[in-house]
Amino acid sequence: MCSSKTSNSMLSAITRTTIRKNAVAIINLISNALTHSLQSGTPHHHGMGALRLPSLTSLSSAAAAAAPRYYFYRQLCLPFRSVSAAKFSVQSSTFEKELEPTSQKPRLQPKKDRVITPRSQDFNAWYLDIIANAELADYGPVRGTMVIRPYGYAIWEAIQDYLNVKFKETGHSNMYFPQFIPYSFIEKEASHVEGFSPELALVTVGGGKELEEKLVVRPTSETIVNHMFTQWIHSYRDLPLMINQWANVTRWEMRTKPFVRTLEFLWQEGHTAHASPEEAEKEALQMIDVYKNFAYEQAAIPVVVGRKSKVETFAGASKTYTIEAMMGDRKALQAGTSHNLGQNFSRAFGTQFMDENGERQHAWQTSWAISTRFIGGIIMTHGDDAGLMLPPNLAPIQVIVVPIWKKADDKAGVLDAASSVKETLQAAGIRVKCDDAEQRTPGWKFNFWEMKGVPLRIEIGPRDVSNRSVVVCRRDIPGKQGKVFGISMESSTLVAYVKGKLDEVQSSLLESAKSFRDGNIVDVTSYSELKEAIAQGKWARGPWSASDNEEMKVKEETGATIRCFPFEQPEGAKKCLMTGNPADEVAIFAKSY
Amino acid sequence: MCSSKTSNSMLSAITRTTIRKNAVAIINLISNALTHSLQSGTPHHHGMGALRLPSLTSLSSAAAAAAPRYYFYRQLCLPFRSVSAAKFSVQSSTFEKELEPTSQKPRLQPKKDRVITPRSQDFNAWYLDIIANAELADYGPVRGTMVIRPYGYAIWEAIQDYLNVKFKETGHSNMYFPQFIPYSFIEKEASHVEGFSPELALVTVGGGKELEEKLVVRPTSETIVNHMFTQWIHSYRDLPLMINQWANVTRWEMRTKPFVRTLEFLWQEGHTAHASPEEAEKEALQMIDVYKNFAYEQAAIPVVVGRKSKVETFAGASKTYTIEAMMGDRKALQAGTSHNLGQNFSRAFGTQFMDENGERQHAWQTSWAISTRFIGGIIMTHGDDAGLMLPPNLAPIQVIVVPIWKKADDKAGVLDAASSVKETLQAAGIRVKCDDAEQRTPGWKFNFWEMKGVPLRIEIGPRDVSNRSVVVCRRDIPGKQGKVFGISMESSTLVAYVKGKLDEVQSSLLESAKSFRDGNIVDVTSYSELKEAIAQGKWARGPWSASDNEEMKVKEETGATIRCFPFEQPEGAKKCLMTGNPADEVAIFAKSY
Repeated sequence: MCSSKTSNSMLSAITRTTIRKNAVAIINLISNALTHSLQSGTPHHHGMGALRLPSLTSLSSAAAAAAPRYYFYRQLCLPFRSVSAAKFSVQSSTFEKELEPTSQKPRLQPKKDRVITPRSQDFNAWYLDIIANAELADYGPVRGTMVIRPYGYAIWEAIQDYLNVKFKETGHSNMYFPQFIPYSFIEKEASHVEGFSPELALVTVGGGKELEEKLVVRPTSETIVNHMFTQWIHSYRDLPLMINQWANVTRWEMRTKPFVRTLEFLWQEGHTAHASPEEAEKEALQMIDVYKNFAYEQAAIPVVVGRKSKVETFAGASKTYTIEAMMGDRKALQAGTSHNLGQNFSRAFGTQFMDENGERQHAWQTSWAISTRFIGGIIMTHGDDAGLMLPPNLAPIQVIVVPIWKKADDKAGVLDAASSVKETLQAAGIRVKCDDAEQRTPGWKFNFWEMKGVPLRIEIGPRDVSNRSVVVCRRDIPGKQGKVFGISMESSTLVAYVKGKLDEVQSSLLESAKSFRDGNIVDVTSYSELKEAIAQGKWARGPWSASDNEEMKVKEETGATIRCFPFEQPEGAKKCLMTGNPADEVAIFAKSY
Repeated sequence: MCSSKTSNSMLSAITRTTIRKNAVAIINLISNALTHSLQSGTPHHHGMGALRLPSLTSLSSAAAAAAPRYYFYRQLCLPFRSVSAAKFSVQSSTFEKELEPTSQKPRLQPKKDRVITPRSQDFNAWYLDIIANAELADYGPVRGTMVIRPYGYAIWEAIQDYLNVKFKETGHSNMYFPQFIPYSFIEKEASHVEGFSPELALVTVGGGKELEEKLVVRPTSETIVNHMFTQWIHSYRDLPLMINQWANVTRWEMRTKPFVRTLEFLWQEGHTAHASPEEAEKEALQMIDVYKNFAYEQAAIPVVVGRKSKVETFAGASKTYTIEAMMGDRKALQAGTSHNLGQNFSRAFGTQFMDENGERQHAWQTSWAISTRFIGGIIMTHGDDAGLMLPPNLAPIQVIVVPIWKKADDKAGVLDAASSVKETLQAAGIRVKCDDAEQRTPGWKFNFWEMKGVPLRIEIGPRDVSNRSVVVCRRDIPGKQGKVFGISMESSTLVAYVKGKLDEVQSSLLESAKSFRDGNIVDVTSYSELKEAIAQGKWARGPWSASDNEEMKVKEETGATIRCFPFEQPEGAKKCLMTGNPADEVAIFAKSY
């Protein structure tokens, strides 16, 4: 297997740099477009009206354009992989071709002989094997697109169910904006279009005719949302305006990876407008807190919450807050972001309201998003060599019941007991399934449901039936250690036991991930220590008050970026690891997806 | 106002004919495409592998192409309308322009002086006024697109919540397919592409480059779903495969109307595959029954359930079942359809499975859909001159509490009582809002919430506070008749009373709609009776066993089509209204949206 550490670092550096350039270009072009297109626009727009939301699944097409050799290199030296992983790799490296003839790809059905590449051997291959074998997703016929299969989609539904309630509790309404955006919204500055166009899908033909104006398939909805906001916001009484939409989004990514980065993905994007900067700041903080709680409590992912550096702040935002998750390969995954946009957008779009004193003011805005990328984060945080491991709170199936019998005489009794256990748990609100298929052995089923990441397994054999008890096995503790015999089938005892165990697994996953995370964050006080930590694949945390240029230098030399200035800061005086000057905060540096 | 009855009839006839031609063309082209593209395809495909789902919001672009003069005519003779209605009309008649400069359109904010065109005066203008004033939707910047605003989207969420549970209870899993479909899937027969292309939006540029193969933005997902099904279905053990997706769909409609027909709309599309024809038939019937129950119980719309005639059956389906709703103008709205696709698709796509005897068979399939069009159906079934009228089961706000005070001394007491009433109802699971805004008068609020269609209003004034009682007013019974004084504020009494009243309103809406429907269906025994009924704007029901040609003749001469052969049939011997020959069934004829 050819190590691509160096090229990864290079890529990372190039990517980030290119992204910044593009981001700035985009900002300028949007601002200009808006100034030109909206008659109400104030001419003194900031150059900072941002187009793009926290780019959850973004940002590598520019890199592909900038560093094509990396891709060819990668394509030529594919490591040995299991069949399904190889398929995904082919997919991710055929960025030159528009279409992948799916019919030539081997099918991704679970097979008796399914093999998952060991995680330690090849993290990426392991990841793709899990997605294929656990039937989370499959390829669409168009390069870079993904079919989200029922088991994967059920995880997304669990994410939606939780967040949707939280969004509404915090005063947001769902709505729906069209996905087609006039190209003119982002086109006015021709010299800048080139920087952004690599990511756009354009509709040029509609109803059999060449369109007079090309339409952009939404890569994010800031432009259209703000276009509508200007029509709905007039008085302070119209504020705060707090909306959210669940939608599909399209970005023409060159290097794709299921869930983490796909040509089309699903997300929610929140957009709000407020009458004061304090309210907007409070909202941005509230929403990153909603995301953080979701990550900890539901996904069992101990994200680090913090503020992005100026270099990493999304253009158009005054401040970007982020939750950063450490994956099993210790790379960081930006799992959700919340922006305080200040008045940057409202100035660019002319979104004004009459305040209580009868004076016109620009609204203060936020935006925030989480996408199907989060499913990738769950896989890469908890999975192991046996497959997926799902946190009980988000698991589509929390308990799998496996009846076991050899003699025909035992069958009816075992199946009866299994079915009754299932009913009992289901009635208690536990998501449970009974696998009574006759064509598979119990051993096959154990492996299969472990691979699917089901948190608890209940085994019921003839002896259990006569004892009126069951065996309960934890997915997160392999072998006999995770197995408890003789749990009573009696309804209230069983329900209480199972609920307790599910809570234990949930906490335990979070604790393991925390230990892993904390064991892989190194406190550094100098640049050489930082470099060493990054070279070891770890995250480096150290005081930072150096310049943007020095931040870029770190990026170029190590491949690591400032993931955030964490909210949790050590006390006491600090000296910048790079310059030795006083520093107010520590920053966390890491390589990232 | 220029009457367009004649041109409407003409249009209808032309539309239907053109649609049939297109449909057949599409079928052929799909079948051929699939036969060519899938190596596994059996050459003896039926010419009937259908592309299109029950086209809930479809079918007028072909008409536009076929009868452009109608459109110009319509554009030139716009009737006098209220401002907001005129705006929508401009929108719907500017099909020649790709983009509508939204900035020039007056805003659709509710205004003190909002006026709703009387329903009897101009049904279409009334419909558009309601959408604008109740803030259900707004225009997107691109012609024919629609922004679904929070209040409109909340109705869609209520629809989703109900159906999603029913779909899962009946064994379906949600999943997600990419929206980009390779053009080659539907392109192979070049001579037929022309017939379908009027409705397609095509992505031709991605990532800044001209694509080698154009991508279709999904108008429906049959092609991609079946493309994936062939990869997932191998053995009878993989069946039944029963899935659903909630998604946006794009059809390049020329004549648009908010909710009823938009360029992009939201829907659910179910797709299933089974091992036997009996199972597929059972599924198709089950799903139309789910839709029927939804319409009756949730939307209070007494749809007529039945089977489409051969002419109206969607191509590719062996049978199409439909729910047909009568709108306030007595036009029919096809509100949901369920198809038994037979083996037509599986033969076209080569979707085969190994049966229990080890023999390869083609799967038996169904598909079924309901869209945001249904919201249009709710508006046009229940609304009146005062505005929207929502069935309590789907109403985002079921009860509006309006505190009333004049003297400053009374204010605190009234607001306290209103707030406590709100809390009480909310705790009981009732969707309730308290409108305590100080800048609006009670009278303004009454009108506003009536216009928004809230089923119940609770008024609380100083006298009510001292009596510990409230006034409850029904939206569906105007004035004093719908008003009951002296309902105790005591929690259990109030909750029981309000729940009872909500149920009453729900039943009452259904009963009114039923009376209206039944009062406007005329039993006919001859063609002249049929023509008279249709000329009066009614539905005609009569025995039918005539030919497809005679059915087309009715269409051309009256503008009415067979909406369905209803499941509920009168007993006894019947003679065809057209030919006098024996007939097994009565059919319902009507003009439709």
